[in-house]
Amino acid sequence: MTLSMKDEILKRFLLANNTPISGQHLADELGISRTAIWKHLQTLQEEGYGFETIKKKGYLLSSTPDKVDPARVTSFLTTERFGQRIHYLEECTSTQIIAHELAKDGAQDGTLVIAETQTNGKGRMARPWESTKGKGIWMTVIIRPNVPPSQAPQFTLVAAVAIVNAIKSLYKNFTPTIKWPNDILINGRKCTGILTEMLAEMDRVEALLIGIGINANQQLKDFPESLQSIATSLSIEEHEPINRAQLVATILSYLENYTNVYLSEGFLPIKALWEESSGTIGKRIKATTLREVIEGTAIGITESGVLEIQLDNGEIKGVYSADIELT
Amino acid sequence: MTLSMKDEILKRFLLANNTPISGQHLADELGISRTAIWKHLQTLQEEGYGFETIKKKGYLLSSTPDKVDPARVTSFLTTERFGQRIHYLEECTSTQIIAHELAKDGAQDGTLVIAETQTNGKGRMARPWESTKGKGIWMTVIIRPNVPPSQAPQFTLVAAVAIVNAIKSLYKNFTPTIKWPNDILINGRKCTGILTEMLAEMDRVEALLIGIGINANQQLKDFPESLQSIATSLSIEEHEPINRAQLVATILSYLENYTNVYLSEGFLPIKALWEESSGTIGKRIKATTLREVIEGTAIGITESGVLEIQLDNGEIKGVYSADIELT
Repeated sequence: MTLSMKDEILKRFLLANNTPISGQHLADELGISRTAIWKHLQTLQEEGYGFETIKKKGYLLSSTPDKVDPARVTSFLTTERFGQRIHYLEECTSTQIIAHELAKDGAQDGTLVIAETQTNGKGRMARPWESTKGKGIWMTVIIRPNVPPSQAPQFTLVAAVAIVNAIKSLYKNFTPTIKWPNDILINGRKCTGILTEMLAEMDRVEALLIGIGINANQQLKDFPESLQSIATSLSIEEHEPINRAQLVATILSYLENYTNVYLSEGFLPIKALWEESSGTIGKRIKATTLREVIEGTAIGITESGVLEIQLDNGEIKGVYSADIELT
Repeated sequence: MTLSMKDEILKRFLLANNTPISGQHLADELGISRTAIWKHLQTLQEEGYGFETIKKKGYLLSSTPDKVDPARVTSFLTTERFGQRIHYLEECTSTQIIAHELAKDGAQDGTLVIAETQTNGKGRMARPWESTKGKGIWMTVIIRPNVPPSQAPQFTLVAAVAIVNAIKSLYKNFTPTIKWPNDILINGRKCTGILTEMLAEMDRVEALLIGIGINANQQLKDFPESLQSIATSLSIEEHEPINRAQLVATILSYLENYTNVYLSEGFLPIKALWEESSGTIGKRIKATTLREVIEGTAIGITESGVLEIQLDNGEIKGVYSADIELT
């Protein structure tokens, strides 16, 4: 990870764990002047970080804004590829759009695009996606697996199991479930959406853009009225503020891990993980596709991400794309 | 088609077929002043168009540079959707890259991106593609069919039959053939490459980018030495200069027509057209894939664009992606 000098300095303070750092020590270690150190601290203060001067000991990071900037995310990062390049934006149209451009420009496997807010966030089928500043997580991971386009849909399932297990590893007051194809629910309310897009030639994927939107620190009043009965956030369910940078780093770690599993062992272990966390499999559902409404029992997913529904007459139907609800 | 005022004026001259047009008449018809008309003619002259003033009759278009600008292309256009929006560039990195951006910004079905030269043209597998200024055709058509990603490869075949039949309709001194998957050859030498890319969600294509590179007016010396024994141009084979704007408009017409046929009648009529123009089917070939070399007789293509090769032991192998040569 190549951080800017300012972010290098910030990362040292974040990792210093409430002990002061001497300005001279920082200057020596980073090979820049004390004046330069001081200027970077000024900039960080303007961005909302608080520093105290402790006599004869140096500077102490006394308060941090809640941000998902590269230094914060990197301070929690344990991956080899994912998140090793981070494009961080205070505001953007949508991380998917930025990621598209970066992918066309050759961005490397695992590049993360993350923003504090989006002005034009989109879910599946180009539906609008609410992006309250600084409260949620809006990110896209660019991955470049060597697979044909036909395998791309499986990565939505890889992403879903990565996110659900990252959430489970950090929070204990609730159990998230996956709603086919691309949502994560808590107590029946949506807290996360996944939008996978691809750039591809006809026989090879050039880039997959795993777009992830997570309601992290929103309170109910932050949601538009129309969503208040169907949306929730991790913070509402956990009864605690969420450390977004830690969650982002944890998701990257699970995503890298499960991507490696998928590429080396194939779809079977992912399918098992997916069905384990699914809130759909084994339930009676109603699936509304563009053409018809299908009612029956969800019995599994196939290699191509198709949801299999058993009708009351025993017939099994595969659904590629639908909105589903439990009945 | 919304043309600029300058292009509107140019189009009238192009369609006037060597008869003069009165400045007053033009001014009245377009609702602008004669001074404005005169300024647009000045700009056109700077771009290489020649005008003569014929006493009491008006202006005569006496010479035209060989360009593929919107006015020239539009003057030959007979389509309903394809080419109704044209993004024309004297120079660009590659029309595929520009088309990607336009597609993400919502460019409409049938939008054409065309350039006089590319600084970074690419073929399949990101291989470089030579783009001599003003001699070839470098274009991308953005199409937005309502199909799942699995059907996308068939559009490479739709494009191939459209181009080969457009060429056949205009030139009579040679017979072009299609080389699977995406080249058009004349007398065994390459004159056209097709690169189809897609932007897609997992269950629907957002946009297909049909990239087409055609050697039109190049002479042998215009090609790098390494290509001189394997490349050719329409002009070399036809022994005449090629009217590029006319060819572009004709391709758009066939492409719109065959796209409509495909969407309403399915793959079968396209498969028949493709096999009719194929230089591969029925021939003994050697196919080099990433993993192996397969020798046998090419016997057909499947719905998913797979080339079927019958080995000497009778076994039939399907090839998704390969470089092939006749043996």
